Amino acid sequence: MTGTPAPPGTGDPAPFTAADYAARMRRAAQSAADAGLDGVLVAPGPDLVWLTGYRPVETERLTLLVLRAGHDPVLVVPTLEAPDAAEAAGAPALTLRDWTDGKDPYEAAATLLDRSGRFGISDNAWAMHLLGLSGRLPGTRYVALTEALPMLRAVKDAAELERLAAAGAAADATFEEIRKVPFAGRRETDVAADLAELLRQFGHSQVDFTVVGSGPNGANPHHEAGDRVIERGDMVVLDFGGLKHGYGSDTSRTVHVGEPDEEERKVHDLVRAAQEAGFRAVRPGVACQDVDRAARAVIADAGYGDRFIHRTGHGIGVTTHEPPYMIEGEQRALVPGMCFSVEPGVYLPGRFGVRIEDIVTVTDDGGRRLNNTSRELVIVD
Amino acid sequence: MTGTPAPPGTGDPAPFTAADYAARMRRAAQSAADAGLDGVLVAPGPDLVWLTGYRPVETERLTLLVLRAGHDPVLVVPTLEAPDAAEAAGAPALTLRDWTDGKDPYEAAATLLDRSGRFGISDNAWAMHLLGLSGRLPGTRYVALTEALPMLRAVKDAAELERLAAAGAAADATFEEIRKVPFAGRRETDVAADLAELLRQFGHSQVDFTVVGSGPNGANPHHEAGDRVIERGDMVVLDFGGLKHGYGSDTSRTVHVGEPDEEERKVHDLVRAAQEAGFRAVRPGVACQDVDRAARAVIADAGYGDRFIHRTGHGIGVTTHEPPYMIEGEQRALVPGMCFSVEPGVYLPGRFGVRIEDIVTVTDDGGRRLNNTSRELVIVD
Repeated sequence: MTGTPAPPGTGDPAPFTAADYAARMRRAAQSAADAGLDGVLVAPGPDLVWLTGYRPVETERLTLLVLRAGHDPVLVVPTLEAPDAAEAAGAPALTLRDWTDGKDPYEAAATLLDRSGRFGISDNAWAMHLLGLSGRLPGTRYVALTEALPMLRAVKDAAELERLAAAGAAADATFEEIRKVPFAGRRETDVAADLAELLRQFGHSQVDFTVVGSGPNGANPHHEAGDRVIERGDMVVLDFGGLKHGYGSDTSRTVHVGEPDEEERKVHDLVRAAQEAGFRAVRPGVACQDVDRAARAVIADAGYGDRFIHRTGHGIGVTTHEPPYMIEGEQRALVPGMCFSVEPGVYLPGRFGVRIEDIVTVTDDGGRRLNNTSRELVIVD
Repeated sequence: MTGTPAPPGTGDPAPFTAADYAARMRRAAQSAADAGLDGVLVAPGPDLVWLTGYRPVETERLTLLVLRAGHDPVLVVPTLEAPDAAEAAGAPALTLRDWTDGKDPYEAAATLLDRSGRFGISDNAWAMHLLGLSGRLPGTRYVALTEALPMLRAVKDAAELERLAAAGAAADATFEEIRKVPFAGRRETDVAADLAELLRQFGHSQVDFTVVGSGPNGANPHHEAGDRVIERGDMVVLDFGGLKHGYGSDTSRTVHVGEPDEEERKVHDLVRAAQEAGFRAVRPGVACQDVDRAARAVIADAGYGDRFIHRTGHGIGVTTHEPPYMIEGEQRALVPGMCFSVEPGVYLPGRFGVRIEDIVTVTDDGGRRLNNTSRELVIVD
């Protein structure tokens, strides 16, 4: 590790207030009504964090936020978690309805629901809770929020953008430091630990991933970091991010240990051109799939189409992985305020991989990158 | 922190083999058939870890193990995660069926299922995946594994018991060290950090919770650890655990900073007697709820019935929180090899709380504690 640079940014953002959360809950209930739903059922997880500021973990004990247009929001919560729920920033905008161990929690929730209604439910709600609810109310129907209200959290407001930009700047600062550390002769896990330490140093409260894919490991886009000792001559995919002030970062750069050969440079140039093409496709009204197509076309035209084996991007917000997805078949249109990754890659099994990733936000007339380190091939030691 | 004691135990247990996992999968498929199910659908999470040794996280990308009696197990997995899945210890006992981003993963899974079948599904499977599957196969029905096969992982074999005992011994060693650290004048979070460090020092790879509930915070059974500075005269509830060699620990002791007063001692004695009564109720054939009743009766008889506001216990295994539950209404019978907590408590709002918890395993003729530190009221500094 080299030195202890000062964190970028200008201090902590103002916390979200109960009024902010109340407005989000009203908007969600209204969007649900507009989509023909009788309400939205929100399980612990990112939707609940975004709507209420409350962050329990999903367990076998039912916690469920019930939103219906024209009704006040109600949070069904286990009695012994009620004190924690009452301390959430959004709690003043909620009615808590607690249930005690041994009682039927689905009964408590069912009294709030239209018996023949159709409800959106958090993607990550537990199947056991969905089955418990629908068992209690056989006439109800359910649809995953990703299907029903995929864009619930997708369009970020100014305060959210400020946090995402700060998280992106912290990830950029991390890259500027990591390129100075020694790579050759160290394990991937050592460099990954450096990445995690830097992210925290630059203000991340949570590190979600620190991928270090050296040499052939870089050709597996899902490789994290292993015991492999990085060698001179390796390409190394770095892909790292987490949460800062509750909002996500996620950036990838591929570096080379010492001088690259001609093919390595060619593949890196290709991925860089694909990333640029994906970025340039971003503007309001464009379908998500067109961002994917723009990046993919560059790689396919160069004959590497079958080596780009994942979608081009995913949204980011209170999680590092959420809608909208930049993928073939996703025809929804980009809207100003959306934030997502543009991260094409080329993977040559047994040899190396290259991925370049920036978070991009949709502006009124195009896109703006929230990651701004060099996309040239950086040489490391 | 005081010194660096040597970890207890006798080294690493032998890893589970593909044959171990194959046997578990066969048993699960057979249990499902015996319960009138056409199969079991297992999402990422503890069921999948226990059945295959594979530990991805549950995401919007479908990963699903399909078990049917008389058929080989199939794991549906995203293409880019297939290399990781293939490295799981149970992979040789599985057929991998991968699907690529942009394709319909539910189609891939649906081809494996009887179109009018009834399937058990992991409690924690995401609602979006259940809805995706049942949308593809409208004639299928689903039941949560907790309902259908609640005891799937509940009865531990000898190799699992060895791991749970080692995790319990590590938690006990942690308590023996934490009682020596200074409490008065330090924040709850400082003591919690000590607990986490000790658990790791004694071999835990994962720390799940380090509750330090001092004074009035102890009266909230769901309090974790906060900024409160512990004072002389405080009761302090300590409840900590995590995973060692993939199996859980979970123990609680309530300590007092300096000499307790008469009521504090009386309440602690009461909870200790309740814990002892719960433990003594454990033997094969007894209903889970009778363990709860035995502990609860002691507290109710002393007039504190309304201050014991949670169930008496929960199972433990590859997670620190799973069936069987020791709770009123749970009439299933205890079976040798089951492991669960016995953890009554008394909570006096605004004043203090007391909880005493051991993991207990059911033997052929009774119960055996996997936590064995003193249950007397320990005085700390």
